[in-house]
Amino acid sequence: MTTSSFDAARAGIIAVGRRLDARGWAPATAGNYSVRLDDGFAVTASGWHKGRLSEEGVLRLDRDGQVVGTGKPSAETHLHLSIYRQFPAAGAVLHGHSPQAVGLTRAFRDLKAWHFAGHELLKVFPGQTTHETEIALPIVDNSQDMAVIEAAIAPALARPGAAPAYLIRDHGLYAWGKDLDEAERVLEAVEWLIATELAERSFRDSAS
Amino acid sequence: MTTSSFDAARAGIIAVGRRLDARGWAPATAGNYSVRLDDGFAVTASGWHKGRLSEEGVLRLDRDGQVVGTGKPSAETHLHLSIYRQFPAAGAVLHGHSPQAVGLTRAFRDLKAWHFAGHELLKVFPGQTTHETEIALPIVDNSQDMAVIEAAIAPALARPGAAPAYLIRDHGLYAWGKDLDEAERVLEAVEWLIATELAERSFRDSAS
Amino acid sequence: MTTSSFDAARAGIIAVGRRLDARGWAPATAGNYSVRLDDGFAVTASGWHKGRLSEEGVLRLDRDGQVVGTGKPSAETHLHLSIYRQFPAAGAVLHGHSPQAVGLTRAFRDLKAWHFAGHELLKVFPGQTTHETEIALPIVDNSQDMAVIEAAIAPALARPGAAPAYLIRDHGLYAWGKDLDEAERVLEAVEWLIATELAERSFRDSAS
Amino acid sequence: MTTSSFDAARAGIIAVGRRLDARGWAPATAGNYSVRLDDGFAVTASGWHKGRLSEEGVLRLDRDGQVVGTGKPSAETHLHLSIYRQFPAAGAVLHGHSPQAVGLTRAFRDLKAWHFAGHELLKVFPGQTTHETEIALPIVDNSQDMAVIEAAIAPALARPGAAPAYLIRDHGLYAWGKDLDEAERVLEAVEWLIATELAERSFRDSAS
Repeated sequence: MTTSSFDAARAGIIAVGRRLDARGWAPATAGNYSVRLDDGFAVTASGWHKGRLSEEGVLRLDRDGQVVGTGKPSAETHLHLSIYRQFPAAGAVLHGHSPQAVGLTRAFRDLKAWHFAGHELLKVFPGQTTHETEIALPIVDNSQDMAVIEAAIAPALARPGAAPAYLIRDHGLYAWGKDLDEAERVLEAVEWLIATELAERSFRDSAS
Repeated sequence: MTTSSFDAARAGIIAVGRRLDARGWAPATAGNYSVRLDDGFAVTASGWHKGRLSEEGVLRLDRDGQVVGTGKPSAETHLHLSIYRQFPAAGAVLHGHSPQAVGLTRAFRDLKAWHFAGHELLKVFPGQTTHETEIALPIVDNSQDMAVIEAAIAPALARPGAAPAYLIRDHGLYAWGKDLDEAERVLEAVEWLIATELAERSFRDSAS
Repeated sequence: MTTSSFDAARAGIIAVGRRLDARGWAPATAGNYSVRLDDGFAVTASGWHKGRLSEEGVLRLDRDGQVVGTGKPSAETHLHLSIYRQFPAAGAVLHGHSPQAVGLTRAFRDLKAWHFAGHELLKVFPGQTTHETEIALPIVDNSQDMAVIEAAIAPALARPGAAPAYLIRDHGLYAWGKDLDEAERVLEAVEWLIATELAERSFRDSAS
Repeated sequence: MTTSSFDAARAGIIAVGRRLDARGWAPATAGNYSVRLDDGFAVTASGWHKGRLSEEGVLRLDRDGQVVGTGKPSAETHLHLSIYRQFPAAGAVLHGHSPQAVGLTRAFRDLKAWHFAGHELLKVFPGQTTHETEIALPIVDNSQDMAVIEAAIAPALARPGAAPAYLIRDHGLYAWGKDLDEAERVLEAVEWLIATELAERSFRDSAS
């Protein structure tokens, strides 16, 4: 984990929001992003468009997740804090929303995980050194009770071969890394893998 | 509803046009955008490319919808005014054109509404607090007579569970909100939901 | 037709190249663009990437299509001149290359025209006032002999209900208008219509 | 082959990285780009996001491929050097990753090459003067041993009618040219051809 000043974290979050929006992964006010600081967290405020964040759109939380100053963090801050607790090396968490990732969770409603196998791009995930492997992207059902999601997903994330990322069905993708750059790389990689598997299926199903 | 000065409304409309065009939702001169003012409306002029509006591309209308000064508003201004009459809280209306939304209305020619169910993103719509619900996106047949469209769609929009948006078959999407930001969020959300359901179908139909 | 100075035409061509490239319609060095001047034509030089044109990438031709000064115009300049001869009102011609338009011509190898029916966006084509109509987009087989293409396509373009645009199979799209803005609108409209009909087919073919 | 100063090569590589990333072909830290110099090579360093390269992200290698100064080149530098050895006219090599190209290699696991036939865009490949031809895009299985990939692909690249490009299955695309501009044109052309053939199949498979 790399620690970061609040100012640097805020600037990084604003920049990453612009990039995710440009890729179509931040519709309306969906998404929330956070960075772990020495003395707490930086997290996006509720209700902002993530492609057009200004400085007031990023809040400071203390180590217990309570807002320092004013502002309302997203209800999903609970899930960010849960990832930071389970993974001490996590320094940043991104929650994005692509049509393809959410479409996948809706197409296969009973699936508990999507498995990526044989992709060179798997080496983007920290600690992977070969494409001859398989990574599990856990899928959890959506709930308006964040504690229900947290309890349902934690065991899947602890299993060997789990990606530093998971999908909430009908909802979106969580991805994390030691810092904001790594979290963004994980998010980009998962989205790319899903897009690639959809293209693979389109080619395979088509008449030759 | 948030009122706005004409200058601010005009600047906002020019900016939203650039963003909708960048997403591919403003082909050729299609689309028209409006904002409710204290003493009338700001609305795009007929014949302009919405991704490249300049200040002359936005007109001022009085409370009755008559142009103040010179310029020709879009014929569809009638539908904007109709939304403002039916929904006193509406402060801005956007009319966009995506291939996917219009493709949907053409694929299912007899459908009177498309229903979005179970999406977390439904919470983007004002007043929604859970994903465990269903939102109706009404669909009305196209006509060159704006009064025909208005009469056909008004009852569907008044029903509980209707989105602050509707589709005109073979034509495009209307979306509105208390201000331009909210209207854009509604538009983005509807487009994202349609794209997600198309991806869902592509995954589901593909061989495993 | 609106006449234009060479300098204005050149600036317009450079700008339109950036926009078509941003949409993915100008791969590699494909595409060529022209504007009719009082005393000849402005046309893109052979071999330039159309998304990164500089002033030297636009040549001046006299009324007979001969280069004024130095530089090599595209071989397809022949087709531009042919359109200007057949349509005295044409002031600009754009030749773009989208995967979807070319994919369509390859999917239906025997088709002589693609018909767009019932789209509101048909009103973008000059002279159209209703969506309750049908527009023919002629398709001609590709050839390395420009005179062969010209002879094959001219009769189809002269028929009532033909778009100010045509497809060359395995190759790309020609579109024109009274000036560069109108030609770009026609090009955008045709590409949007094709994308919409592909989305329509994807929705229709999918299981409900 | 056009030689280039290190400074010019580095600036060119940084710019091409931004463009490939904007097209979605440079996810996470995937991809590596190189330019042949008079006295060696310029090549991207390992671990950088190719859309956000700064000057330290481009390394200088001597003629034997050893780093001059400090920094760690990508392991795939081996494949770049192999292309420069086999093709003395090659002045730049680009390795990109699109969902469609990789999806194709996964859909057809036994295929040793993909053949593009009849496309006008084939004329983008150096030396092609007609669309009435066929170009082979060789496909090689992935390996973590670069020497294995090199040995497997070299004979296919030497055959007449091979593109100045090849695919590594489950991995990505290599493309080269006399300079960075030509390599980028080849890369764009291959990606466009694959996207076009996927659109062709989508249209062909759909009900009329």
